Amino acid sequence: MGRQTSSSKSRDKFALGIDYGTESGRAAVVRIANGELVSSVIVPYADGVIDAQLPGGPKLEHDWALQNPRDYLLVAEKGVRKTLKAAGVKPEQVIGLGTDFTASSPLPVKADGTPLCFLPKFRKHPHAWVKLWKHHAAQPEADRINEIGRERNEDFIRTYGGKYSSEWFFSKLLQIANEAPAIYDSTDRFVESADWIVWQLTGKERRCTCTAGYKAMWVKGKGFPSREFYGALHPSLANVIGTKVTEDYYPLGARAGGLTAEWARKTSLREGTPVSVGNVDAHVSVPACAVTEPGSLVMIMGTSICHILLGRERQVVEGMCGVVEDGVVPGLWGYEAGQSAVGDIFAWFFENGVHVSVSREARRRSVPVTVILEKQAAALAPGQSGLLALDWWNGNRSVLVDAGLTGVLLGLRLATRPEEIYRALIEATAFGTRQIIEAFESRGVEVRNLVACGGLPEKNRLLMQIFADVTGREIRIARYLLTCPALGSAMHGAVAAGREAGGYGTIFEAAQNMAQLQKDSYRPRKQAHDVYDRLFREYQTLHDYFGRGTNDVMKRLKALQAEQVSR
Amino acid sequence: MGRQTSSSKSRDKFALGIDYGTESGRAAVVRIANGELVSSVIVPYADGVIDAQLPGGPKLEHDWALQNPRDYLLVAEKGVRKTLKAAGVKPEQVIGLGTDFTASSPLPVKADGTPLCFLPKFRKHPHAWVKLWKHHAAQPEADRINEIGRERNEDFIRTYGGKYSSEWFFSKLLQIANEAPAIYDSTDRFVESADWIVWQLTGKERRCTCTAGYKAMWVKGKGFPSREFYGALHPSLANVIGTKVTEDYYPLGARAGGLTAEWARKTSLREGTPVSVGNVDAHVSVPACAVTEPGSLVMIMGTSICHILLGRERQVVEGMCGVVEDGVVPGLWGYEAGQSAVGDIFAWFFENGVHVSVSREARRRSVPVTVILEKQAAALAPGQSGLLALDWWNGNRSVLVDAGLTGVLLGLRLATRPEEIYRALIEATAFGTRQIIEAFESRGVEVRNLVACGGLPEKNRLLMQIFADVTGREIRIARYLLTCPALGSAMHGAVAAGREAGGYGTIFEAAQNMAQLQKDSYRPRKQAHDVYDRLFREYQTLHDYFGRGTNDVMKRLKALQAEQVSR
Repeated sequence: MGRQTSSSKSRDKFALGIDYGTESGRAAVVRIANGELVSSVIVPYADGVIDAQLPGGPKLEHDWALQNPRDYLLVAEKGVRKTLKAAGVKPEQVIGLGTDFTASSPLPVKADGTPLCFLPKFRKHPHAWVKLWKHHAAQPEADRINEIGRERNEDFIRTYGGKYSSEWFFSKLLQIANEAPAIYDSTDRFVESADWIVWQLTGKERRCTCTAGYKAMWVKGKGFPSREFYGALHPSLANVIGTKVTEDYYPLGARAGGLTAEWARKTSLREGTPVSVGNVDAHVSVPACAVTEPGSLVMIMGTSICHILLGRERQVVEGMCGVVEDGVVPGLWGYEAGQSAVGDIFAWFFENGVHVSVSREARRRSVPVTVILEKQAAALAPGQSGLLALDWWNGNRSVLVDAGLTGVLLGLRLATRPEEIYRALIEATAFGTRQIIEAFESRGVEVRNLVACGGLPEKNRLLMQIFADVTGREIRIARYLLTCPALGSAMHGAVAAGREAGGYGTIFEAAQNMAQLQKDSYRPRKQAHDVYDRLFREYQTLHDYFGRGTNDVMKRLKALQAEQVSR
Repeated sequence: MGRQTSSSKSRDKFALGIDYGTESGRAAVVRIANGELVSSVIVPYADGVIDAQLPGGPKLEHDWALQNPRDYLLVAEKGVRKTLKAAGVKPEQVIGLGTDFTASSPLPVKADGTPLCFLPKFRKHPHAWVKLWKHHAAQPEADRINEIGRERNEDFIRTYGGKYSSEWFFSKLLQIANEAPAIYDSTDRFVESADWIVWQLTGKERRCTCTAGYKAMWVKGKGFPSREFYGALHPSLANVIGTKVTEDYYPLGARAGGLTAEWARKTSLREGTPVSVGNVDAHVSVPACAVTEPGSLVMIMGTSICHILLGRERQVVEGMCGVVEDGVVPGLWGYEAGQSAVGDIFAWFFENGVHVSVSREARRRSVPVTVILEKQAAALAPGQSGLLALDWWNGNRSVLVDAGLTGVLLGLRLATRPEEIYRALIEATAFGTRQIIEAFESRGVEVRNLVACGGLPEKNRLLMQIFADVTGREIRIARYLLTCPALGSAMHGAVAAGREAGGYGTIFEAAQNMAQLQKDSYRPRKQAHDVYDRLFREYQTLHDYFGRGTNDVMKRLKALQAEQVSR
């Protein structure tokens, strides 16, 4: 019945969303009227994550992670054709196209947008390729940026919760300037892949405010730090703004341009199909989770968690990854925080810490090991394991912003069982999210409830209930979990198309019509929440003891480890 | 060649040692001349550790652990006959017999030595049976003893490192007085099993100074605490000393008496064969490890570690289990310390924390999982794992004397491997021993080197090397590992026989002739020791933070756990 209230006109119109992930890209066809995901196709990147050896080129050093931009083009070409076919949708029914990307994943290009790594001259040079978000080799550059930034009291230090990351735009550009001056000199533009793909599709460099604000120090109405700041980083960078880095940025949902004739041919879409400016996978998910107002914390839950919250004003909240005006939806400040390992910790445990007896039981009952452990762990009451963990297996992103921290498991006894450890690990990640919520609320940025998407909510009901119990807040789940970013991109494509073409005037309008949540939610249980209040106080004490400098044992152990490995 | 230098007279003489363990007893025939173990027979206890239900009687409460003294008699009867036969030794060649026992494992008996649990009237009453050393149900009584002891500033509080244990003699007697007044009233003597077995064999109650000194507050030359102290514990205990508990104690190696006619018949030994007074399994191992002087710390390494050290004077060393004059060998003070879980922690890890992939590899190569892990862990340099653990899986015996503490694993990363955890667990137990050594040396009680016996040294070469590297001390290994207590008992049997009968005049003489160490030893490696110095400082910081009251999180977690379980 519901669907028949949509006009037949809008029911025949679709938007395309392309979500560029770490290992693959996904192209999806979404119905404009109600956000229904009609079809979705995954195209793996042929070269994947390049972290050992450049294809046909030299071996890479430790901590490098590159990508081949050719793979991004193939996703658009193959993915769009396939998903249109699967959906049975004709090119003329597609009114707009949106994209989102991992970030910061920048690359050096020529003035016409040609990646340096496409040129025979630079093909075998690692610095000519895309530096994927998880390229961590620019840590010395990040340290330098933070040092100079703090000395000069630059505003970006506060925007980024006290620390600019080695993963981000200028750390990576500075690494090129330091290590490969020839590449740096040949770079006409240094651009986010999120913006580069839009440039390819439309023929226009129309960079988005989202990557600029969260990864590249850009502030609405103010622009970038001064020439003096960049000059202090490296003489070659003094003039970087306005030359290698554009000063023009466009709000999310803006129309970057129309699809070029070449790309119309490649994708089978109509020439001129409106394309929105780029976006970031986490940020584009927020309106796709039906969140366009303050108060609902969106959690993109997978190997890690990305937390995004909207606020009416800018507050300096400890350990944020960034706070950007219009950074998620227009008119509001978008706060980003995160936990650097969540699903990854459970995967580590399953791969290293689960005894053969559990595996045998799983085989006998023909279910995955995770199902056995989840059932056993779910039978425990909060606090019953006697265990407490610090969830820092991959450092701490928020609120401590410290990659040098490591995990702790405390309370071990001879009677401790694997399912107790598993539950303690889940609880620790929930405490990590609660710590972030408390950081927001301590600065008056309200968190009334939670909305989850990503891979974990579907797989792990126990985890969701524990998150509700620990945070004391209801958790609602997005209608689409893994395809949430693709839906968000399609929504921005519908906005780029505009109301007259059968799309939407604003992302708010698009969210109202296209974004939905599942009916069931996870509600906190009072008794469990009370116990978790006590456990969380213990977590906080350890968090501060190990995380705020009272005992820097984790860093000393890491330093000793590095010494021993290099011997 | 060496053996032929012994006179044929002494080469034809033997002593018998009986070692009463937790699950079984062992009878061994030892050559007087050189301590050679000629044969050894294990007799399991038919009723084993009774911790769930009394045979034909009621179920037991949590934390109870009883034994049936009948099982001890069967070890003497069957074990001696079998081991003599296996050795091809004739009864007239056996010049002496010694025994050792777990402690404190006391039982209530009638005036003639008959256990109350042998009487039909009391057979079904748990309090009538032997309370095994690991009976932990007398904790409220131990708390009371410590409270009153501290109030009255009793000397035993210092002797026992600040705390009298629930495992010990008077805690168990007080539990009977509190919970079973009828049993208490019917008890003529409350006696250690170590002394009871000697009473059975000789017909004489000749109690040893060792159990009295380490477990029952007795001090050479001073006797027991006052009537007022015992009366304050419980009115019925006011007169306990001199009535239910004898005031006569005999030094180790003293002749308790000769084998009775009945026991001569049962064992096939000669009537009147000299029997030494009882001893404790750990303490009797010290001269069997060729240690009869200060400076060498003996480690009996198995599921737990018992540390024994000799000193020329009494010092108050933190967290000792006891310090007793003549408690190990005559003329010296015997210090006892311990770690409540060592082999048990590794067993826990193998049973809970080792992934199926390691098991598969072990099966493929037809070796135990432990071998795979030891090899992988041995390939790591000290500090390379980045991990640090606190070895408190079963609380901390020395130096903190706190059963409420629990284990910690710190430094966990997504790249952490099982063999790294295994190595960190071994290192943690070595740090625990070093903590004990430093407690000794801080009070001027010297520890020059280490001597090891028990089950672990043979099984785990990596562990022994890590102990040497961490402590910075050479470790020598006893000639006999698991049969070390039986050898020690036989040595005391040879002393009870005396020089004229072909035995020895003192335990020093016996040790010189009968006790040997293996030729190879573990020497500390300088580079590893330097790294472990740094890691040990980190261990100490965490040890004090969690163990000395700065953060009592472990106890609060345990309390919360108890709350949740009882819900």
